[in-house]
Amino acid sequence: MTTLRTPGPTIGVVGGGQLGRMLAEAATPLGVELVVLDPTPDCPAAVGARDQIVAEFDDEAGIRELAERADVLTFEIELADQTVLDRVSEETGTPVHPKPATLETIHDKLVQKRELEAAGVPVPPFREVDDADDIREAIDDYGAPVMVKARTGGYDGRGNVPVESKSDAAEALESVAGPAMVEAFVDFEREISVIAAKGDDEIAPFPIGENVHEDEILRETIVPAGSSDDVTDRAREVAADVLDVMEGRGVYGIELFETGDGTVLLNEIAPRPHNSGHWTIEGAETSQFEQHVRAVLGWPLGASGLRSPTVSVNLLGDVDEPREATLHGLDRILDTPTANLHWYGKRETRPLRKMGHVTLSAHDESTDDLLAIGRELESTVTFTHDGA
Amino acid sequence: MTTLRTPGPTIGVVGGGQLGRMLAEAATPLGVELVVLDPTPDCPAAVGARDQIVAEFDDEAGIRELAERADVLTFEIELADQTVLDRVSEETGTPVHPKPATLETIHDKLVQKRELEAAGVPVPPFREVDDADDIREAIDDYGAPVMVKARTGGYDGRGNVPVESKSDAAEALESVAGPAMVEAFVDFEREISVIAAKGDDEIAPFPIGENVHEDEILRETIVPAGSSDDVTDRAREVAADVLDVMEGRGVYGIELFETGDGTVLLNEIAPRPHNSGHWTIEGAETSQFEQHVRAVLGWPLGASGLRSPTVSVNLLGDVDEPREATLHGLDRILDTPTANLHWYGKRETRPLRKMGHVTLSAHDESTDDLLAIGRELESTVTFTHDGA
Repeated sequence: MTTLRTPGPTIGVVGGGQLGRMLAEAATPLGVELVVLDPTPDCPAAVGARDQIVAEFDDEAGIRELAERADVLTFEIELADQTVLDRVSEETGTPVHPKPATLETIHDKLVQKRELEAAGVPVPPFREVDDADDIREAIDDYGAPVMVKARTGGYDGRGNVPVESKSDAAEALESVAGPAMVEAFVDFEREISVIAAKGDDEIAPFPIGENVHEDEILRETIVPAGSSDDVTDRAREVAADVLDVMEGRGVYGIELFETGDGTVLLNEIAPRPHNSGHWTIEGAETSQFEQHVRAVLGWPLGASGLRSPTVSVNLLGDVDEPREATLHGLDRILDTPTANLHWYGKRETRPLRKMGHVTLSAHDESTDDLLAIGRELESTVTFTHDGA
Repeated sequence: MTTLRTPGPTIGVVGGGQLGRMLAEAATPLGVELVVLDPTPDCPAAVGARDQIVAEFDDEAGIRELAERADVLTFEIELADQTVLDRVSEETGTPVHPKPATLETIHDKLVQKRELEAAGVPVPPFREVDDADDIREAIDDYGAPVMVKARTGGYDGRGNVPVESKSDAAEALESVAGPAMVEAFVDFEREISVIAAKGDDEIAPFPIGENVHEDEILRETIVPAGSSDDVTDRAREVAADVLDVMEGRGVYGIELFETGDGTVLLNEIAPRPHNSGHWTIEGAETSQFEQHVRAVLGWPLGASGLRSPTVSVNLLGDVDEPREATLHGLDRILDTPTANLHWYGKRETRPLRKMGHVTLSAHDESTDDLLAIGRELESTVTFTHDGA
């Protein structure tokens, strides 16, 4: 039987960025406390958490302290080190969710794709790259363009290089600068994602979101997605198959391609709450952050239905170089009835850095209306001095 | 033009109980920080706030430190001392919202009723009490029973004594033990409340809630209230008149009686977010806590419409004497799709102490259904050892 006291159960989180911050926002009403580990003093999650341990993500002494102060460990950043987590977990007896083994699978995009393909998850054609010839062969087999990807360390599109012709193969491989893989380029109709939680003996997918990327960085998520019922069903099946492969409880962000003929293909997985699930804070019955808290603690998962059609729009650093972050012109956002502001508490802005987001939840607007409002609001704020 | 940076604007809050805690929960996504002042170390609001100053509510040095660290001061407890607040505000230049003068008006129920009556707000017949004869005369004039009330210091029904007959007058006055007033007993059809925000040059009332008290402590709030449109309109007019009298920005809780013939009479005012407005976190477009943050900062008020019919049910200490708080049997609450748990983080429970609440937001349930679910859930949790 679940009981609650104060201080409540404590979750140790490796990483203290915006995901950790929103995790803390969701944990407090449940009486759950967070301790976060992050190298940046006064990181975004520091305000809502009980405490921050200032240490690198793979600092074993720091992670041991985190484990000793927590009932369960989790991570909000893939840079978490699976070997250290496993060792510390064994030494301290503090479980880690999702399992570090899952992190290991996901770290290496080639291993990830192989394991998922073996489990029957539909993936674009791919192969390992040892040298530029492998890329050229892929162009022969899949047709141009192909995507050359760093096997490890890439996110927000970093480490992904489209290759249009064989003559660019060597240069692309060089720019990836490390172990690489190559994938067929998917000429998608839309990009969609399923945020889904894996609990003790249940899974709970949220409604499917449609994602708009630019420069490979997520700009907008629209829920419900414009996909047909068939595609939606297929996406949920793929998500269920993916969760079968993943080990350990938690929320997973599963990014998919939907092609013109309604095929669903896996793009990438994040073993944590995901940017394309931020809309759940206002738009779903339970947010992805509360769901992650529940999942890692082994509590029952919350309901994941849609409260109302919802759009989220990212606020990115519209600057040419890093500078102290001041967001100008908030008034329109604050004044718009459907809009909810989420500020991540980062002191410095950088080109295209994720600084916050705005969620728009419908009264009776369509998602098209909401998207138009969101884009318009996004255009009224700026981090440049000219906005002052 | 409103700008936002990190650290963001800081609100200094006198009091760090559950209202401060939920204020902090609402402030963080907006990039707004809280420093709270409370005599209990590690008070409920300490987790979500940037910092806590451990000091009594009227400790001038503590409040001066609070003012120096904040852009604006507010309070979440009526025990805040208006004289100290005024002096500190003048010395430090940090404004206080609502105005301490409003606190002074509200502190003394007799002064409060006189000012409101003078402003045209409908109140039950009342008079000052100097001796037991004044109570007996009130019984002659208003009919029995009458309510004898302590003019200051009462809350959650403390200091309110119903007097059935003249022979009980002296004893009632003695039990109040201080300056008193007497009021006609209102034979109400229902108790309702309007939570309303006063901004810079706008007011924003939330939909009207219907309140169920037991032993003069709020148990449940049902939104929308079962009142007719006429009564609802009148309640909003009364709320607007009350806000006219109140000085300074912020959220006010305005408790009203609705009588059988549809008359609306003022009961009491709280110059702060109110227990009967907790439903707004899930049920309204903007929560009363975000609204208070916006109001005291002078930001535009948020939209205050209903998202869906909502019921909140308080979780009170079901114990005979104070003890360390462990809530047993949470599973049903966590497992119920419509239910959202709010835990206040108090280490000790006491008889009828407010320890948390559960909000139930409708998918397609009626408020009657929600209330039935809420009551049933409330009955499944307990702070007694027998629940273990």
